[in-house]
Amino acid sequence: MIDFKAFHKITYGLYIVCSGNSESGNGYISNTVFQVTSEPAQFAVCCNKDNYTSEFIEKYNNFSVSILHENSTKEIFGRFGYKSGKDFNKLEGMDVKYGETGVPIVRDESIAYLECKVIKQIDLGTHLMFIGELIDAQVLAENNEPITYAFYRTVKNGITPKNAPSYIDKSKLEAKPEVKQSVKYECTVCGYIHDEDEEGVKFADLPDDWKCPVCGADKEDFNKI
Amino acid sequence: MIDFKAFHKITYGLYIVCSGNSESGNGYISNTVFQVTSEPAQFAVCCNKDNYTSEFIEKYNNFSVSILHENSTKEIFGRFGYKSGKDFNKLEGMDVKYGETGVPIVRDESIAYLECKVIKQIDLGTHLMFIGELIDAQVLAENNEPITYAFYRTVKNGITPKNAPSYIDKSKLEAKPEVKQSVKYECTVCGYIHDEDEEGVKFADLPDDWKCPVCGADKEDFNKI
Repeated sequence: MIDFKAFHKITYGLYIVCSGNSESGNGYISNTVFQVTSEPAQFAVCCNKDNYTSEFIEKYNNFSVSILHENSTKEIFGRFGYKSGKDFNKLEGMDVKYGETGVPIVRDESIAYLECKVIKQIDLGTHLMFIGELIDAQVLAENNEPITYAFYRTVKNGITPKNAPSYIDKSKLEAKPEVKQSVKYECTVCGYIHDEDEEGVKFADLPDDWKCPVCGADKEDFNKI
Repeated sequence: MIDFKAFHKITYGLYIVCSGNSESGNGYISNTVFQVTSEPAQFAVCCNKDNYTSEFIEKYNNFSVSILHENSTKEIFGRFGYKSGKDFNKLEGMDVKYGETGVPIVRDESIAYLECKVIKQIDLGTHLMFIGELIDAQVLAENNEPITYAFYRTVKNGITPKNAPSYIDKSKLEAKPEVKQSVKYECTVCGYIHDEDEEGVKFADLPDDWKCPVCGADKEDFNKI
């Protein structure tokens, strides 16, 4: 039987992957960015087909990778990871530079970036893999370590969105049914769960202007589960 | 201009990737192991065409991934990372289990493993990418953290073999010529450099039975550079 906990031993970073041009662009949080050859330098990214950014990569044949650091904020994960660019312009108000291919490159909360031109696209079922040849790469800051997915999960209590290649249904991780049923509320935007027992606060007692600690959604966006 | 130092901000783990069966098998150290879809669970590995293991993966259509931990020894990196299975049987004497596909799975110094059946092969020039559907995954130990490439480079002073997707020619990292020329000897097996100034020991003064700290090669395998 497959032990899904083994998946959490695979090491990943976390990145903002963008595509588009100066008039229209979008980005999302990805953990699947990796170098696949050194001569020439080529990088791969994996993107869910339902992800709005995949439409941009297919259309503009470019992508940028902004490498997030350990002090990256919940706001940036909420903005790029748990909300859709179909609903608002994720790049508005951000520190964006446009690369040689025209691709938007987010410099907020990032220590380095890559810019790639897509040369190959591979259909993997639910996801598309894009292979890009490197056009540009720059270091932006030296005072922070790149964030790892393990750091995000354990130190920042981050959770994995359903569209991610590494998403694991919780029922697969917890084989045994819970004996004690605590009262829980789930964020309909990002899936974050407020567990009254764990947090020590009843959901009803949270202030009205309380926000989801992961994606910033309002209290009314939560449902009891 | 591309700043190759940006490449070092991408996060990777380190793995032993094996292929073959109980009669014939081989493995190598890889940093490019990634989950690419969750339903079904599919994983990608990247392998240099010159790498002996790529012949096995093409022939047997299977691969295993053993996830190395932070206390993995130089010996295991030397054995699987800097020597060729064409010269000796890397799996001999190791704690090997054979999976459902017949693939050898190394359990030494590993905290978990994956077993995959290859369903797609992508030609990337110098490297082949294999996409595998997950057959099995198990956790082997909980008392160690998975090793990251950054940890290997900085804490363990590990170096990147030339066949790795992330190999960077040193001249690209050090743009300025060094003013002071120290005396250096290079291991012809793995490329490790003994810098007399850095180590504080003249190469000639090292004992005759001294071994390369990375790959275990003999002193006579070093050349002055």
